Amino acid sequence: MSHVQQSLEIAYIGGGSRGWAWKLMADLALEPALTGRVRLYDIDQEAARLNERIGNRLSSRSDVKGKWHYETRTSLKDALEGVDVVIISIMPGTFKEMEVDVHAPEPFGIYQSVGDTTGPGGLFRALRTIPIYEEFAQAIKTWAPKAWVINYTNPMALCVRTLYEVFPEVKAFGCCHEVFGTQELLASMVVHEGLVQDPPQRREIHINVLGLNHCTWIDRASFRGVDLLPMYRRFAERHREEGFETGGERTWENDYFTSAHKVKFDLFLRFGLIAAAGDRHLAEFFPVSWYLKDPETVRSWKFSLTPVSWRVENQKSLEARARRLASGEEEVELAPSGEEGVLMLKAIAGVEETVSNVNLPNRGQIANLPPGTVVETNALFRYDSVQPVQAGALPSSLLGHLTRHVAQQETISRAGLERNWDLAFRAFLSDPLVAHLSPSEAERLFSLMREKLSPSMPGWE
Amino acid sequence: MSHVQQSLEIAYIGGGSRGWAWKLMADLALEPALTGRVRLYDIDQEAARLNERIGNRLSSRSDVKGKWHYETRTSLKDALEGVDVVIISIMPGTFKEMEVDVHAPEPFGIYQSVGDTTGPGGLFRALRTIPIYEEFAQAIKTWAPKAWVINYTNPMALCVRTLYEVFPEVKAFGCCHEVFGTQELLASMVVHEGLVQDPPQRREIHINVLGLNHCTWIDRASFRGVDLLPMYRRFAERHREEGFETGGERTWENDYFTSAHKVKFDLFLRFGLIAAAGDRHLAEFFPVSWYLKDPETVRSWKFSLTPVSWRVENQKSLEARARRLASGEEEVELAPSGEEGVLMLKAIAGVEETVSNVNLPNRGQIANLPPGTVVETNALFRYDSVQPVQAGALPSSLLGHLTRHVAQQETISRAGLERNWDLAFRAFLSDPLVAHLSPSEAERLFSLMREKLSPSMPGWE
Amino acid sequence: MSHVQQSLEIAYIGGGSRGWAWKLMADLALEPALTGRVRLYDIDQEAARLNERIGNRLSSRSDVKGKWHYETRTSLKDALEGVDVVIISIMPGTFKEMEVDVHAPEPFGIYQSVGDTTGPGGLFRALRTIPIYEEFAQAIKTWAPKAWVINYTNPMALCVRTLYEVFPEVKAFGCCHEVFGTQELLASMVVHEGLVQDPPQRREIHINVLGLNHCTWIDRASFRGVDLLPMYRRFAERHREEGFETGGERTWENDYFTSAHKVKFDLFLRFGLIAAAGDRHLAEFFPVSWYLKDPETVRSWKFSLTPVSWRVENQKSLEARARRLASGEEEVELAPSGEEGVLMLKAIAGVEETVSNVNLPNRGQIANLPPGTVVETNALFRYDSVQPVQAGALPSSLLGHLTRHVAQQETISRAGLERNWDLAFRAFLSDPLVAHLSPSEAERLFSLMREKLSPSMPGWE
Amino acid sequence: MSHVQQSLEIAYIGGGSRGWAWKLMADLALEPALTGRVRLYDIDQEAARLNERIGNRLSSRSDVKGKWHYETRTSLKDALEGVDVVIISIMPGTFKEMEVDVHAPEPFGIYQSVGDTTGPGGLFRALRTIPIYEEFAQAIKTWAPKAWVINYTNPMALCVRTLYEVFPEVKAFGCCHEVFGTQELLASMVVHEGLVQDPPQRREIHINVLGLNHCTWIDRASFRGVDLLPMYRRFAERHREEGFETGGERTWENDYFTSAHKVKFDLFLRFGLIAAAGDRHLAEFFPVSWYLKDPETVRSWKFSLTPVSWRVENQKSLEARARRLASGEEEVELAPSGEEGVLMLKAIAGVEETVSNVNLPNRGQIANLPPGTVVETNALFRYDSVQPVQAGALPSSLLGHLTRHVAQQETISRAGLERNWDLAFRAFLSDPLVAHLSPSEAERLFSLMREKLSPSMPGWE
Ligand SMILES: [Mg+2]
Ligand SMILES: [Mg+2]
Ligand SMILES: [Mg+2]
Ligand SMILES: [Mg+2]
Repeated sequence: MSHVQQSLEIAYIGGGSRGWAWKLMADLALEPALTGRVRLYDIDQEAARLNERIGNRLSSRSDVKGKWHYETRTSLKDALEGVDVVIISIMPGTFKEMEVDVHAPEPFGIYQSVGDTTGPGGLFRALRTIPIYEEFAQAIKTWAPKAWVINYTNPMALCVRTLYEVFPEVKAFGCCHEVFGTQELLASMVVHEGLVQDPPQRREIHINVLGLNHCTWIDRASFRGVDLLPMYRRFAERHREEGFETGGERTWENDYFTSAHKVKFDLFLRFGLIAAAGDRHLAEFFPVSWYLKDPETVRSWKFSLTPVSWRVENQKSLEARARRLASGEEEVELAPSGEEGVLMLKAIAGVEETVSNVNLPNRGQIANLPPGTVVETNALFRYDSVQPVQAGALPSSLLGHLTRHVAQQETISRAGLERNWDLAFRAFLSDPLVAHLSPSEAERLFSLMREKLSPSMPGWE
Repeated sequence: MSHVQQSLEIAYIGGGSRGWAWKLMADLALEPALTGRVRLYDIDQEAARLNERIGNRLSSRSDVKGKWHYETRTSLKDALEGVDVVIISIMPGTFKEMEVDVHAPEPFGIYQSVGDTTGPGGLFRALRTIPIYEEFAQAIKTWAPKAWVINYTNPMALCVRTLYEVFPEVKAFGCCHEVFGTQELLASMVVHEGLVQDPPQRREIHINVLGLNHCTWIDRASFRGVDLLPMYRRFAERHREEGFETGGERTWENDYFTSAHKVKFDLFLRFGLIAAAGDRHLAEFFPVSWYLKDPETVRSWKFSLTPVSWRVENQKSLEARARRLASGEEEVELAPSGEEGVLMLKAIAGVEETVSNVNLPNRGQIANLPPGTVVETNALFRYDSVQPVQAGALPSSLLGHLTRHVAQQETISRAGLERNWDLAFRAFLSDPLVAHLSPSEAERLFSLMREKLSPSMPGWE
Repeated sequence: MSHVQQSLEIAYIGGGSRGWAWKLMADLALEPALTGRVRLYDIDQEAARLNERIGNRLSSRSDVKGKWHYETRTSLKDALEGVDVVIISIMPGTFKEMEVDVHAPEPFGIYQSVGDTTGPGGLFRALRTIPIYEEFAQAIKTWAPKAWVINYTNPMALCVRTLYEVFPEVKAFGCCHEVFGTQELLASMVVHEGLVQDPPQRREIHINVLGLNHCTWIDRASFRGVDLLPMYRRFAERHREEGFETGGERTWENDYFTSAHKVKFDLFLRFGLIAAAGDRHLAEFFPVSWYLKDPETVRSWKFSLTPVSWRVENQKSLEARARRLASGEEEVELAPSGEEGVLMLKAIAGVEETVSNVNLPNRGQIANLPPGTVVETNALFRYDSVQPVQAGALPSSLLGHLTRHVAQQETISRAGLERNWDLAFRAFLSDPLVAHLSPSEAERLFSLMREKLSPSMPGWE
Repeated sequence: MSHVQQSLEIAYIGGGSRGWAWKLMADLALEPALTGRVRLYDIDQEAARLNERIGNRLSSRSDVKGKWHYETRTSLKDALEGVDVVIISIMPGTFKEMEVDVHAPEPFGIYQSVGDTTGPGGLFRALRTIPIYEEFAQAIKTWAPKAWVINYTNPMALCVRTLYEVFPEVKAFGCCHEVFGTQELLASMVVHEGLVQDPPQRREIHINVLGLNHCTWIDRASFRGVDLLPMYRRFAERHREEGFETGGERTWENDYFTSAHKVKFDLFLRFGLIAAAGDRHLAEFFPVSWYLKDPETVRSWKFSLTPVSWRVENQKSLEARARRLASGEEEVELAPSGEEGVLMLKAIAGVEETVSNVNLPNRGQIANLPPGTVVETNALFRYDSVQPVQAGALPSSLLGHLTRHVAQQETISRAGLERNWDLAFRAFLSDPLVAHLSPSEAERLFSLMREKLSPSMPGWE
C-alpha cells in the first residue's frame, strides 16, 4: 500500500516544560507518512521560541523523514484557527504551587508520592487547572471546533472532562504512558519466565484496559496466543516480597519514576487484576494505611515520594539543554519516545488504523461506571475517528475503590466550573487520603492550603 | 366508601424475639379492614407456640376489631404453602455470635454502634444470613411464588437482595422504621420552630427518600405547603453543638436507641441532605475518624454504642413477658406501633392505597445508583402492587460515600452465595470502618473473627 | 387536618377556545382549599377579556367556595412574571389550517379521525406548534423559571418535549383526560358485570398507565381488591362484535367523541393490555388497514371521523355562549369537569397528595422506552413535586408499534426546532398512516400540504 | 514477527449445503498460520462424509499451506466435546418449507425477495430454527462451554440471540458477508470517481457499521484519509435513476444475488446513511409500497425475487460437484472466498488482531438500541476475545424503521422459545410486510402457513 504523505496542521499548547515537546518532535521526525506545520503556543513565549528553533533545526537535518515547520504563535486564536489537531501539555501553575500541593499535607500524615492526580494535591491542582481548560474549550469551540484535541496534562481525567463539560462536541481524548509501563513489565516477564528469549515489542503484549487514569487495570493480557494472567499470578507471588527490577541502571532507589512493582503485585494478589500504572500513582488511590502510611512504609514498598525540589532542579537542567539544542550545541536524539501520539495522528489522518488506550467520557465502554465519567480503555483509531472498545465491567471488589474517585471527579469538576469552595471542601473531605483526619482537622489543612494557593488560582477569589 | 373486610393468609417467619411480633399483632388487631390467619414459624418452636397463644388470646378480646387466627407451623412448607403474604423477621444466629460481630473488632480500634448492617459485624452477620435467606427464597419459589414477602431482618439490603438473586420474580420488599424517626424529628421541629402549636402526625411530614437502608437521605421535605429544608438548616445550625432532644423520658444517656441527633445535624451541614436514620446507624457508614474514633468521641456526639450484653438482658425480660402474655397474667397493649406494615398490607389487599418508603432492587428509582442494588425510596402501594417512585439522584459529594457501600453489597452478596472466603475478605478489607488498618492487620482481625464465627455459619466450612 | 387556604398565582395562556377555560373556572370555584389570581393571556385578546368577565362574575357568586380574581394580560412577560403556575391550552393556528391537516390527505386514502396527534395532520400541527412552544419556553425561563407548567395543548408529547428541549429545568407536565374515559368504561363494567350495584367513582378504579399520549395502556387495573383484567377479557370478548355503550344520550352515531369501544376491545384481544384513550385517537396509531381503511371501515368499528366543519360550527356556538356568560344572560354551571388539574394544583400547593397520570420525559418510568421521550404514566403529586411512578415495561409485541412513534417524536422535535423541511419529510414518510403510499406519492401529498400550510407557519419560510 | 503455527480443534455443524463448506476449506488451506482438525457434523451424514473426503484430499495437496484433518462425527457430543471453535451453518428445514415461506404470501401481495430474515418467511423460518438452536446451545453449554461459536445461519439475529438466551455465557457471534458487498461497491466507486486508478482492497475501505443484520448501515466511510460520504452522495444522485453496475458478467438480470444498487442509493438519499446489505435484503425491511409492491416494481428497482425453484436446481448441481470433488474428478479451487472467518480465527488464536463486523447482543455498542438485541457493528478480535467497538447512535429518522424490527426480534425469540403460537401471530401481524393486510386477512395467511409448515416444525405441535 503506497500512501501519499498526509499533511497536518497542529497547534501545540504548552510544551515549555520541554521534555515532552522534544519527544514529540523526535517522533514526528521519525515518521515518513506525516508532514505539516506545528504552531507553538506557550504563556512562556521564550520557551516557545526556543522550541521553534529546536524544531526547525531538527527538520533541516537530512536524517529526518517527517519534515515539519515550527512557528510560535502569541495568541490562542492564532494558534488554533483552522488547525486539524490540538495538543495540550501544560504545567498548571508553577512548582511553587506544586510545593504546597505535595508537601503541605505531610504534617497531617498525608504523604503523596506524586500529588498531581488525586489526594489534596490533585484536588488543588484540578481547581486551578479547570478554569484554564474552560478557556481552552471555549477557544477550541470558537476557532477549531472540528479539530482533534489530545491532552497530556494532569490531572488527566479532569482536564478531559472540562473540555467536554464546556464544549460537548469537542473531539478530545487524553493520552498517558503509564499503561505502557505495565506492558513493558509483562514483556520483561515473558522473557524472565522463559516463554521467549528475546524481549518482544511492547505492543505485542495485547491487553484489555479499564479504569481511571493512573488507577487503571488489565483484566486480559496475552502474547502470541498465550494467556498471561496465570503466568503473572506466579510471577507476582514469587516477587511479592522482594519486588522485581529489570536490572537496568535505573532502580527504585536512584530514580523517582522507577519501582520494584511491589504495589502492583500486591494489588494483583488482592483483586485479581493487573494494575496498569506506576506504583507511585497507584498508591495514592488507596487508604494511606496500605502503602503511604509514612516514608518508611513507602520505602518498604520499594518506590519513592517525588519531592518537588527535585522537579525544580530537573527543570533547570532542561532549560540549559533547551539553549544548547536551540543553538546547535547539542542535537535532538532521534529515538522513538515510546509514546503513541504519532501512531494516533497517523490513524486519525487515515494512514493506518491503530488500537491504543485513551481517556474518554464513558459511553458504556466500562459497563459498570456511570456515563460521563472520564475513563481509560482501549479505543480504535481510524480516519477522523476514535471509538472506544467495550472493555467490560470491573469486579465489585475493586469497584468501590474506584467509584469513590468517580464521585470525586464529578464533585471536583463542578466545584472547579462553579469556583465553589464549599463543594471543593466536600471533595477534599471525601478523599481517601484524607479519611484518617477528623472533619475539623481536614478543615484546618484545607484552609491552610487554600490560603497559600488561592492567590495564584485564576478565577477564584 | 364501604369495603367488605379483606381476608389474608399470612406466614410469619421468625418473630421469636418477641417485640416485633407483638407490635404486629396489636396493629392487626386495631385494623378493622383486614382479617385472616397468621401461620407462625420459628426455629424456636416454643417461642412460636407462645406467640400463638398470645395472638389468639388477643383476638378473643372484645375491643379488637381485626380478628386473626394464629397457628404454629413446624415446617417451612406448611408455613408457606398458599399464603398471600410472608413476613420475615428473624435473628440470624444468636447473641453469642453477635458478641463477636460487635466486640471482637474493638481492640483494633473499630467501635461499632450497632454492628448489624455494615463494618466487620455487618459483614459476618450477612455471611451467615445469606444462606438462610437462600433457603427462604427457594421455599417461597416452591410454595408461595405469588406471595408478597416483607422483610424486617438485618442486614436489610442483603436479605432483600438474596431473595431477588435466588428468585428474581419474588415480590419482596424490606421495611425499616429508621426513616420514621427522622420524620418524627421534623414533626418536633415544626412545633419547636413555631410553625404549628400541636405536633402533627408523622405522616403529614412529606419526604422524598433516597439511599441505602440505614444510610438513607431526604432531599425534599414539606409540611402543609411549607418547604422544611430552610427551617432544618437553621435548626441544625442552632443545635449542632448541643444537639436536640424532645425532652421525654428517654435520653441519649439512658436509652441506646435515642440520640441528640448531632450526627444528623453534622451530616446535613456537610452534605445539604437530611440523613434519615438513627445516629448510631449513620455513624457506621463513614470513616471511623468522623464519629466512631473511640468511646469518648462517640459520647461527644451524644449517642451510644449498644453493647450485646444489654441485648442479652433485654431478651430475658421479653421472654418473661411472653409467658405472662400467654398465660393472661398481662395483656397486650392495644396501641399502634408506629410501623407501617399493616398500612402496606391494606394497600396490597386493595383497601386503600398508600405511599411509604421501602427497600427494593434499584430499577432507576435512584437515578445514579446501579440497577440491582437494593435501595430505599418511596413506593406507591396498591392492590397487589408496589411501585417505586422516582426519587432522583444523589449529589456527587455524597455519592462516593454510598457507592463504596453499593460495591460492598454486591461483593458480600456474591461472597455469601458462593460461600467464598476470599471474596469475603476482599469486602472486609474494603469496608470504610477497616480502612485505617494495614492489610495485614485487617487479615489478622478477619482470621480471628472467622475462627470464632465459622463454626456456627450454615453452609460455610 | 385543618388547612389554611393556599393561595396561587396562575398564568393561563390561551383558553380563547372557551370550553376548557370554563371547566377550569368551575373546578377552581368548587375547591375551597385554593384561592388566588388567574392572569389570562391570549393572542385573541377579546376572548381573554370575555373570560375575565366570566371568571370574575363567577367569583362573585355566593355558592362559590374558591374565590379567584381574573385579569387579562397583554404580554407574555406580564402574564408570566412571578407566577406559581402556568397553564397552557392554545389552538395552534386556526381551523383553516386544521382543515388542511385533517382533510387534505383523504384523497390519498388517509382518513384521520382526529388529526391532531400523529399522521400527516399531527405532523404539520406539530411543526407549527413547536416554534410557539419554543417562545413559551424561553419566556418561562426568563420570567417564571420556578413555576409549574401544565400543558393541555395537542400534540401533547411534542408540546411538552419542546418545553424541555428549550429549557431543560422547566417543571412542566402534560395533562390529558383520555385515560379517564377508559377508567369510566371500567367503572361501567364493574356494574354491568354485577360486581357492585352502584357505579363507583372513577378514581376508585386503580390503574397502572404506560405509553404515549393518546396511545397509552393499562396493564394492571383493580377495584376494591379485585383484579379487573380477567373480567375485562370476558367483557371484551363478549362485546367485541357489537361494541358496548353505556346507554346515555350520547352514542357513537350522534357524538364525535363517543364510540362503542370496539377498537379498544380489539386491541385488548390482540395485545393483552387495555388501551387507554378514545377509539378515535387509538386508531390513528396503527396501520390504516386496521381501523381507518376508509369511512365504511371506520363505521364498522363504531366510531367517527371528526370533520373540521363541525369544529367550526361548534366554535361559533361557544362564542355566542361566551357572550351570554359574560353578560350574565347565562350562568357557568358549577359542576366538576372530571378533569384532575385542580387536584394536581392542590397537591403542588401542599394541600393533599394525589396520584394521577401525566406526560413527562422518560427518566425510566417506562423501562423499555428511551430516556427523554415524553411518555404517559402515573406520578405522585406532592408539595412542589411531581414524581413519576415506575410503570414497568411494555410487552415487546406492542413495543414495535410504539417505538416507531417514539422515533417520530424525536425526528419531529428536531425538525421543528431546526425548521428543517427535509427532516420533516423523513418523519412524514415514516408515519404509519403514510406507509401504504410509495415514497413519490408521499412526496406529492407532503408538498401539497406544505404549500397550503407553510404561509401560516411561524418561523418556517 | 515469527509465529509458531497455532493449532485449533473445530466443530463444523451443518455444511451439507456445500458451497460454504468448500469456501471455508479453501480459506483454511490458504492460511499458513493455522492448522488443526475439523470435525464435521451434519444431519445429512452422507454430505458430511463427502466433505470429509473433499477436505482431506485438499489437505494432501502440496500447494496447501494450512493442513487440516477432517473427520465426520455422528453425534453432537462427539462433534463438540473439547473443541476450541464451533462453526454453525445449517439449513433449517428443507426447500419444501422454504417454498411455503417465500411463495405462500404472494397471493396476499407479499413478494419477498429472499424470505429468510424478516417478513412472513423470516418469521416461520425463525420459529423452526429456534428450537434447533436451543438444542445447540444446550449441547455447547454441556460439551464446549469455553468454545467460540461462529454462526452463519439465517435468520442470523435470531440464531445468535437463541444461543445467548439459552446459554448467556456462550462466546458466540454471527458473521455475514453482506456488509462486504457494500465495501466492494465503495471500492468500485473510488476507482470510478477517479480517486485512484487501481481498485483497492476491500478492507482498505474503513467503515463504521451499525444496525441489524441485513439492514445495517454505514455512517462513516473513508479510504486513505478521504471521507467517502460526500463522494457517495454525488455517486448516489448520479446513479439513482439508472443504477450502477460494475460491468462484470454478473448483472442484476442474470444473477439473483446481483443488483444495480438502486435501493441502496434511494435509501441513502432518504436517510443520509449508506445501507450495507444487498438490495434484495434491504427491501424486505421497509413498507411493501417502497420496493416490493409487485414484481414490476421490483424490476424497476433492478433487483430480483429469488425463487425457491432456483435454489432447488442449484442444490442439485452442488451435489453433483460434491461427488466430483470427493472422487478427485474435480479439484477445489484454491481462491480466497472473500469471507473473514479465517481472519477471525487467526485473531482468536492470537496470531494477529483484526477488526471486522459481527452480530452480537447489544451491550451499548449501538447507543440507541436496547440491550440484548442482536446487532451488527465492528468488533476488535484478539486472542480469546471479541469486543464490540462503540458504533454510536442511529439517526431518529431511521430509528423507527429499525426499532420495530428490534421489537419483532424479541417477540419472535420468546414465541420460539415458548412455542407460543399466539405470540407468533402477534409478531406476524406487526411485521411491516404484513401491514397492508387487515388483521383478519393476516390471520388467514398465518393459518394457511401454519397449517403447511407446522408438521415439520420440531417442538411445535
Ligand atoms: Mg499520566
Ligand atoms: Mg432497620
Ligand atoms: Mg388529549
Ligand atoms: Mg447474511
